[in-house]
Amino acid sequence: MNFLEERILKDGQVREGDILKVDSFLNHQVDIALLEQIGDAFYEHFKDRGITRVLTVESSGIAIAYPVARRFGVPAVFAKKARSMNLDGDLYTSIVHSYTYNVDNVVTLSKQYLHADDCVLIVDDFMANGKAVQGLLDICRQAGASAAGIGIAIEKGFQNGGRLLREAGVDLYSLAIVDSMDADGTIVFREH
Amino acid sequence: MNFLEERILKDGQVREGDILKVDSFLNHQVDIALLEQIGDAFYEHFKDRGITRVLTVESSGIAIAYPVARRFGVPAVFAKKARSMNLDGDLYTSIVHSYTYNVDNVVTLSKQYLHADDCVLIVDDFMANGKAVQGLLDICRQAGASAAGIGIAIEKGFQNGGRLLREAGVDLYSLAIVDSMDADGTIVFREH
Repeated sequence: MNFLEERILKDGQVREGDILKVDSFLNHQVDIALLEQIGDAFYEHFKDRGITRVLTVESSGIAIAYPVARRFGVPAVFAKKARSMNLDGDLYTSIVHSYTYNVDNVVTLSKQYLHADDCVLIVDDFMANGKAVQGLLDICRQAGASAAGIGIAIEKGFQNGGRLLREAGVDLYSLAIVDSMDADGTIVFREH
Repeated sequence: MNFLEERILKDGQVREGDILKVDSFLNHQVDIALLEQIGDAFYEHFKDRGITRVLTVESSGIAIAYPVARRFGVPAVFAKKARSMNLDGDLYTSIVHSYTYNVDNVVTLSKQYLHADDCVLIVDDFMANGKAVQGLLDICRQAGASAAGIGIAIEKGFQNGGRLLREAGVDLYSLAIVDSMDADGTIVFREH
């Protein structure tokens, strides 16, 4: 069991509706030392891939992207979830359904910050049905950039996002894959 | 002129409606080395204040809070802009008007992550009329926590947020205060 799985067992809470609450260390209060470990783990896995940019989507992905980008010495870029008045019209856009909030979001990225010669590492805190990651892959395709891989902190392995990506040959590296969880607090991780 | 003011002159763009676009290094693409410098500067200014938590509001504040919290060795906490289905009912809430998007947001923070014995450093990327910071100060008051100070990357000095806070005796430390700017690209910083 790795450091993140141990922390999920210690401080994660299972809620009705297949919700795994990790607010106390990952996406509301942020344990910086833990995030640094996540950054190190993603760096170790992807360090030979020539990464030029770390891409995520606001907002909780930003706290993951920061330490990863720092380790790689490249910029972090975060896609935005609504068209901002401050953004230029020259945008990549993709529609992403949010499972958490049950709404469709338009995810946008300025064309200035992703190019055909980029080699992108996509990161996020959670993956369930993989819609957010698919939106970021779609944006990479629009840019002509290559997506070297995907780093996810916590994957809900009982939803199909991870399976679809692995079947498509994507290098998806999830630090903790939850295969089942129960409101009584039982959490079963996939073996590495 | 400090490192941030130099970068704003080099890469910032002035847009209609008093918008200063710093997307290329601060809040869309993130230059990690620059953010580390911001973290160092806030740490130097506030290091003797017994900070126990760094507080910001999602989403672009997260990229500022991360390096600051890392330097202090304390958790970063980010308030959320909409009531999430994943958050417990036990929340501090405050109404914040967003100048950028011209909407009222409810900013929420779980009561688990801010306590009466906390000494808080509030940070954000921008301050104009100061509504976001006032919302975070309101949340600190609700928690009974002391707000040791406020670290802002870019303050729009021609709006009144900073003046009101300084008149109230708050230790507001802004790395770059823009006193005026013009669509022809002229940006005038307040002298330190």
